[in-house]
Amino acid sequence: MARPLILVSNDDGITAPGIRHLVEIVLALGAEVVVVAPDSPQSGMGHAITIGHALRLNKNPVFGPDVEAYECSGTPADCVKIAKHYILKDRTPDLVVSGINHGSNASVNVLYSGTMSAAIEAAIEGLPAIGFSLCEYGPQADFSHAAEWVSQVCRHALENGVPAGTALNVNIPKKSDTPIAGLRLARQARAKWQEEFDRRLDPYQRPYYWLMGSFLNLDPGTDTDEWALANNYVSIVPCQFDLTAAHGLAQLSANWTLPLPVPTEDAAPTQPVASGDYGPATQN
Amino acid sequence: MARPLILVSNDDGITAPGIRHLVEIVLALGAEVVVVAPDSPQSGMGHAITIGHALRLNKNPVFGPDVEAYECSGTPADCVKIAKHYILKDRTPDLVVSGINHGSNASVNVLYSGTMSAAIEAAIEGLPAIGFSLCEYGPQADFSHAAEWVSQVCRHALENGVPAGTALNVNIPKKSDTPIAGLRLARQARAKWQEEFDRRLDPYQRPYYWLMGSFLNLDPGTDTDEWALANNYVSIVPCQFDLTAAHGLAQLSANWTLPLPVPTEDAAPTQPVASGDYGPATQN
Repeated sequence: MARPLILVSNDDGITAPGIRHLVEIVLALGAEVVVVAPDSPQSGMGHAITIGHALRLNKNPVFGPDVEAYECSGTPADCVKIAKHYILKDRTPDLVVSGINHGSNASVNVLYSGTMSAAIEAAIEGLPAIGFSLCEYGPQADFSHAAEWVSQVCRHALENGVPAGTALNVNIPKKSDTPIAGLRLARQARAKWQEEFDRRLDPYQRPYYWLMGSFLNLDPGTDTDEWALANNYVSIVPCQFDLTAAHGLAQLSANWTLPLPVPTEDAAPTQPVASGDYGPATQN
Repeated sequence: MARPLILVSNDDGITAPGIRHLVEIVLALGAEVVVVAPDSPQSGMGHAITIGHALRLNKNPVFGPDVEAYECSGTPADCVKIAKHYILKDRTPDLVVSGINHGSNASVNVLYSGTMSAAIEAAIEGLPAIGFSLCEYGPQADFSHAAEWVSQVCRHALENGVPAGTALNVNIPKKSDTPIAGLRLARQARAKWQEEFDRRLDPYQRPYYWLMGSFLNLDPGTDTDEWALANNYVSIVPCQFDLTAAHGLAQLSANWTLPLPVPTEDAAPTQPVASGDYGPATQN
């Protein structure tokens, strides 16, 4: 393509160092860059969207005159929606990138990730999309080793596409003395957070609770994103937004004794599909 | 089981009619019921969690003396985390139910759904979990036809279990003159929201934007949740939280020319897995 159009978002907010690095990387690819990112940090927002109140949207010249950039008061998923349907309209991005997140989104963290929700929202729209995350958080995170890998993944996505119905979850090991071993396709590791709640009392003696936790990798597989990262690879997991569990359908069909007809393609012809409009509780 | 322990949550908040109906249904099953639900509506929160500020948690006697009920200032996923790790601790629920949501969570709506994020969070914890939604929103929604179906699904889940690694997404048609046709296993329909943004000016002449949209079912399949609902069936989709797309791994492996080794199980032995603690941006 002559000059690709790349849409950039994130969840750490438009002023986070990670998105600055990502914008510089895609500019260096020769792309036309449009940024629509949250005006404040949205970590942990998952795939939240804003339906109870209105959004603000303002141009922000933070990336200089060559980059059309907007800050939005909504979530990462909101940013992609307003970018696609209001700002870009008929301009179709060749690639949507989100990040670079300050902190890992490997394994089960993908579910809580605002970074990945921006990418998945783009994938729902049928756009090739990638979320990038660095396994180091905080404003002082060192991104210096990430650029060449992020650039390489973006170039391959522009040239070879991203599998339909997926967004790529790319995680990059924290900078260390050992060079990155390479890129590695992986599956999402089975893991969870072992939560703890730190109970404290406010000055009025009312309790409040801080969510804390330790990450537990329950998955010994060497084909997982956690294994790749622990072995200094950049991990790439293609993530789908169709959550249907085929094994679940089979098990329910076998084990439940309800009149539960197994879905078949030779059922009655399709009736007109349901459609609706947003309402206070339509998307929730 | 003698007397099952059932944890109840939702996303419309602890005072919503839908959760009152759900509590009554599971009490009628003879269950011991613990409720931990948001203290305010959390529609559209997806799988958001609260890591930037502390949570409040208070007992709320709204369901009477026989139900141990708490309201929490967090998201639906937060409610399940604090229920599992702080309130219940060593008491393991036999079932976790979420809802009954005011509004459909079929198809792609599952991704934006706070109702389903509560159920999926429970599934990550290894608990059998179900999210229930009624395809009618608003406080006046008619739940009268839903009880027998919700009860039937809960009884089967208690007796036969829920497939491991999944949470069930159960949607119930809006009340109509036609009786419910039955329960139907289904896959998530391929669909999207065609967004529109309604731009307005505030009294200070600054623009703001309301997210609006129309639901577009792009999926002609008769094995989908949308087809089931349009044909007056209660739809049941087992939803997984492992987002890995097998077709995506295969396509990337075939089409990308990077040094991208396909994951294999005969790779080097597993090194100690990465672990970490919550930080400002660890889960995002």
